[in-house]
Amino acid sequence: MTYCAALKLDEGIVFVADTRTNAGVDDVARFRKLHTWIREGDRVLVLLTAGNLSVTQSVVTILEENIARRGEDGEENLLDAPSMFQAARMVGAAVREVREVDGPSLEAGHTPFTASFVLGGQIRGEPPRLFEIYREGNFIEAAEDTSFFQIGEHKYGKPILDRVANPGMSLANASKLVLLSFDSTLRSNLSVGMPLDLFLYRTDTYRVGLARRIEADDPYFRELSSEWSKSLRDAFANLASFEVVRDSGQ
Amino acid sequence: MTYCAALKLDEGIVFVADTRTNAGVDDVARFRKLHTWIREGDRVLVLLTAGNLSVTQSVVTILEENIARRGEDGEENLLDAPSMFQAARMVGAAVREVREVDGPSLEAGHTPFTASFVLGGQIRGEPPRLFEIYREGNFIEAAEDTSFFQIGEHKYGKPILDRVANPGMSLANASKLVLLSFDSTLRSNLSVGMPLDLFLYRTDTYRVGLARRIEADDPYFRELSSEWSKSLRDAFANLASFEVVRDSGQ
Repeated sequence: MTYCAALKLDEGIVFVADTRTNAGVDDVARFRKLHTWIREGDRVLVLLTAGNLSVTQSVVTILEENIARRGEDGEENLLDAPSMFQAARMVGAAVREVREVDGPSLEAGHTPFTASFVLGGQIRGEPPRLFEIYREGNFIEAAEDTSFFQIGEHKYGKPILDRVANPGMSLANASKLVLLSFDSTLRSNLSVGMPLDLFLYRTDTYRVGLARRIEADDPYFRELSSEWSKSLRDAFANLASFEVVRDSGQ
Repeated sequence: MTYCAALKLDEGIVFVADTRTNAGVDDVARFRKLHTWIREGDRVLVLLTAGNLSVTQSVVTILEENIARRGEDGEENLLDAPSMFQAARMVGAAVREVREVDGPSLEAGHTPFTASFVLGGQIRGEPPRLFEIYREGNFIEAAEDTSFFQIGEHKYGKPILDRVANPGMSLANASKLVLLSFDSTLRSNLSVGMPLDLFLYRTDTYRVGLARRIEADDPYFRELSSEWSKSLRDAFANLASFEVVRDSGQ
């Protein structure tokens, strides 16, 4: 499995993806699930991928090939997309193309066609936008009331996002928050693994804010993780006790 | 969906179940998912149920009918089970019986046969024991390294249990912990709903420790929930900031 999350703020967008891929517990590998297309001064696009690796790699390859062919036949591609909406449609079209080719034999082998994506960034002329794209190729966009998307193993890390996330946070605070959401997931699910890829985009800059691979021994992440555990245990201890007064066994 | 959790301690066992059942979002109802069979001085058995309600109700009914018929034909039943292991087998046999009757037509209607159970308690002559029983009727038992079982929507509430649960906790502390695990789940997933049923069993007492229905307006649960949210936000704010120093946009 995989866990990816992106949080859209007034200040910009935070993207984080893990790098673990497994086909069975004895076939574990590391693959990048955070992909970027950048033309400085004009656009920054970030794509997070989850699901069957053969499907998601094919989708990314199609998107890359369309860019490589852009001179030739006016092929629609991410670097020329007039809007993030059109870019999301291109991702959707690539998913449908892969499904047409690989879907029937996957299903014949009882391997479900799974793939989901988060696409975010900014194209000059628009505000930053964030989309979640489904395996059917359709998609939704983050709006005022929903400022984050998660794909893959999203449940373990959702409660902390639900409690704390809000669009007014700074990019630094939002990074801390998304990393905590990953920390909870990493502890509870073996199929999500370090290192993590983190990418920050700052509104109206049209270039990389920060792109960092966070390794398992990253000093900040390790401290965050251990301080958070300690804080949670302290907070737990400080909460009012459950009264077992009606317990006749007391 | 459903969320149920049980935590086995040296002091006893804590059981908590929600009560929400839904068949589609416009068909929401309240059903008890915590069932008890008690013969004071001899045994306390608690069964938590998750999955298709028609399946789990049938399982409980079969277990009840076997008790009702115990005088007649020496039918194996929970009140005469010589051990918790044999009691878990009886639950497994009931699941298989329901599957034989209802499985084929459920599958024909593309409704998966889903059911899972947590069975815990104590029968005189044994220490307290805790089992998780699968829809196939097989089961596993909680041992030293795994002191809790969860069924249903278990992922949201797992991180806090992973961090804090240990067999040395008091029943009161474990109750607080399991309720927090429910609080996280209730916030993040609409298919899990109040009220909650809580049951405490204290080792070697062979009677009800505490059986309480916790309603949505329960003062302790409300305070726990709001204090926990506040503690988490404070803890979050107090963690070291993520350094965006390498951010060229700064």
